[in-house]
Amino acid sequence: MTAQDFTRRMESAVAQAAAAGFTGLLVAPGPDLTYFTGYRPTAITERLTLLVLDTNRDPHLVVPTLERPDVAAAPGYSVITTTDWADGTDPYRPVTRLLDPAGHYAISDSAWAMHLLGLQAALPRSRYTSMTEGLPMLRAVKDPDEVARLEAAGAAADAAYEQIKEVGFAGRTERQVGNDLARFLRAHGHSQVDFTVVGSGPNGANPHHEMGDRVITEGDMVVLDFGGFQDGYGSDTTRTVHVGPPTSLERDVFDVVRAAQQAAFDSVRPGVACQEIDRAARKVITNAGYGEYFIHRTGHGIGLTTHEPPYMVEGETRRMAPGMCFSIEPGVYLPGRFGVRIEDIVTVTESAGRRLNNTSHELYVVA
Amino acid sequence: MTAQDFTRRMESAVAQAAAAGFTGLLVAPGPDLTYFTGYRPTAITERLTLLVLDTNRDPHLVVPTLERPDVAAAPGYSVITTTDWADGTDPYRPVTRLLDPAGHYAISDSAWAMHLLGLQAALPRSRYTSMTEGLPMLRAVKDPDEVARLEAAGAAADAAYEQIKEVGFAGRTERQVGNDLARFLRAHGHSQVDFTVVGSGPNGANPHHEMGDRVITEGDMVVLDFGGFQDGYGSDTTRTVHVGPPTSLERDVFDVVRAAQQAAFDSVRPGVACQEIDRAARKVITNAGYGEYFIHRTGHGIGLTTHEPPYMVEGETRRMAPGMCFSIEPGVYLPGRFGVRIEDIVTVTESAGRRLNNTSHELYVVA
Repeated sequence: MTAQDFTRRMESAVAQAAAAGFTGLLVAPGPDLTYFTGYRPTAITERLTLLVLDTNRDPHLVVPTLERPDVAAAPGYSVITTTDWADGTDPYRPVTRLLDPAGHYAISDSAWAMHLLGLQAALPRSRYTSMTEGLPMLRAVKDPDEVARLEAAGAAADAAYEQIKEVGFAGRTERQVGNDLARFLRAHGHSQVDFTVVGSGPNGANPHHEMGDRVITEGDMVVLDFGGFQDGYGSDTTRTVHVGPPTSLERDVFDVVRAAQQAAFDSVRPGVACQEIDRAARKVITNAGYGEYFIHRTGHGIGLTTHEPPYMVEGETRRMAPGMCFSIEPGVYLPGRFGVRIEDIVTVTESAGRRLNNTSHELYVVA
Repeated sequence: MTAQDFTRRMESAVAQAAAAGFTGLLVAPGPDLTYFTGYRPTAITERLTLLVLDTNRDPHLVVPTLERPDVAAAPGYSVITTTDWADGTDPYRPVTRLLDPAGHYAISDSAWAMHLLGLQAALPRSRYTSMTEGLPMLRAVKDPDEVARLEAAGAAADAAYEQIKEVGFAGRTERQVGNDLARFLRAHGHSQVDFTVVGSGPNGANPHHEMGDRVITEGDMVVLDFGGFQDGYGSDTTRTVHVGPPTSLERDVFDVVRAAQQAAFDSVRPGVACQEIDRAARKVITNAGYGEYFIHRTGHGIGLTTHEPPYMVEGETRRMAPGMCFSIEPGVYLPGRFGVRIEDIVTVTESAGRRLNNTSHELYVVA
């Protein structure tokens, strides 16, 4: 990413904001700030850092004095103006000086409530809308460099899955298998591992169960959901394996989830509303009689964060466009018994979907 | 921590909020929610989780449906009422149903701006103030169990410093020394290492420099600022060492910072305003002629987070009370040359301060 690339992104955002009726954008530390400037503060703290983007001036970053040297090392530094505020002074003054007192700004979702309240108090006539509400598709369409990084992260996750299939499951704890998974992800290039869900038997019926000290046994269905970051971009993959031969019910649930994942994937196409992905998966599961056990949305965007717009959920009527990247991850969870989920990251091409995870969807029997 | 301990904390908070004129508290994932319930979501995401505390009802936690099983495993679960909202439904409805439409709520600093805007839109007459603005001392006074954990974390940091002094510095990179420091912190009981600043020579003049590939050489002053978490509570210590014999200027700056740290420590006493700590340190440094090179506040509270109220900064007129724990960390930074900082965590007793870090403040000469 060159300084020109960051300028292009900032200019495009200002134009999108203006078209949506906003005065400008207020960008907080986190994925939005990384996207526009390449700057990642060492830690996100109570000290205000905020990038102001609008049509009236060049990009302007307000930072704590003692973090100024860090900003100077950021890739986008040369194309932004930087102002700093010292401990003990009012951090909102240098920001509000840049704002239209009656302006309407889109602000990063994860900006701290404390900072939003500070701005609202300083400029009582100003108005704010969250980025996801006001400009949800700002980072949704990835450029080719971003898709390439997501694809590399997906390939590493695939390689980790091929390895984990061959370790022993029966007689080991979920944590032991999860630690193997984390090690494999790192060995294949991940700089950070964020989650390694190993949900065995009844634990698999809790979609957010991470891993525990349960000893995996013959006959368990095991949900493996793992991901992290590589080169700044995320991976997020789920495969469900079985220890020894599955029962007829387990096989049936698995086949339904697999068909739901495929149906959702087959409905990916530019111009189709995001909620149609959710509907396609849900229809298969509901028709098979398991609708009440599919208790989450079908997917989420992915990029500089693991969860970002667009969301594949009922009510999301915005349409897919080439370059969008998101998960498709239907699941069925039978409380107290077991769960099944299959998840791939998918990118939208000019005409269809293309998977960034490519390991088999067959029910793999592990030892 | 038992469920009764959490109940006691929540009841005290509601009483403090009422005394300060608030209708109640809105507690977001992060240190506030951990403090009141022991619940730490696996990840802090766009899905709304919020605890409502007020005088009208029992504590009420609103969570995403698929995280409900995680909440059920939290230590404080038995003393809170839990409501969940499903993907695709309005997450603000179950919260606003619990709120006074014209109420005034204190909300966690780091609650997402997106969620605050959602509440403001749903209840246009409601008002909000950040926790730090409205109830800054809510978690500031630590109970004995918390002080004991901070002390254990401080002892581990001390042990890591004693070890790092004896490794070789000259000829190794900052990163190599920093990795040693991280390893030592973990070996002495830290479950998480958050920062290992190794600022050698001119890099030490940037207070937020972490560590880089600069090779440390004979004659370097080296700032070592390191910390993380142990048993849920933080450590944060700084010592400055020198590779070989220091120059007269280096020795002078060091002695000034050391005297400033001691002067600030000597002014710790219940009833004294927090800003007096900053003034005591700054006076020593200013009188010595280095005032313009002391570019940050003197300290910050510490507990479930590394930075939290009270802040030892000009303008903070709130008074110290027994049980408060915070850093005292004056520094002098000569741009392009070197920096010196000395930092201890200190707790307030009935009559004075007591250090939770206890290694020597002598300028140690490393190899």
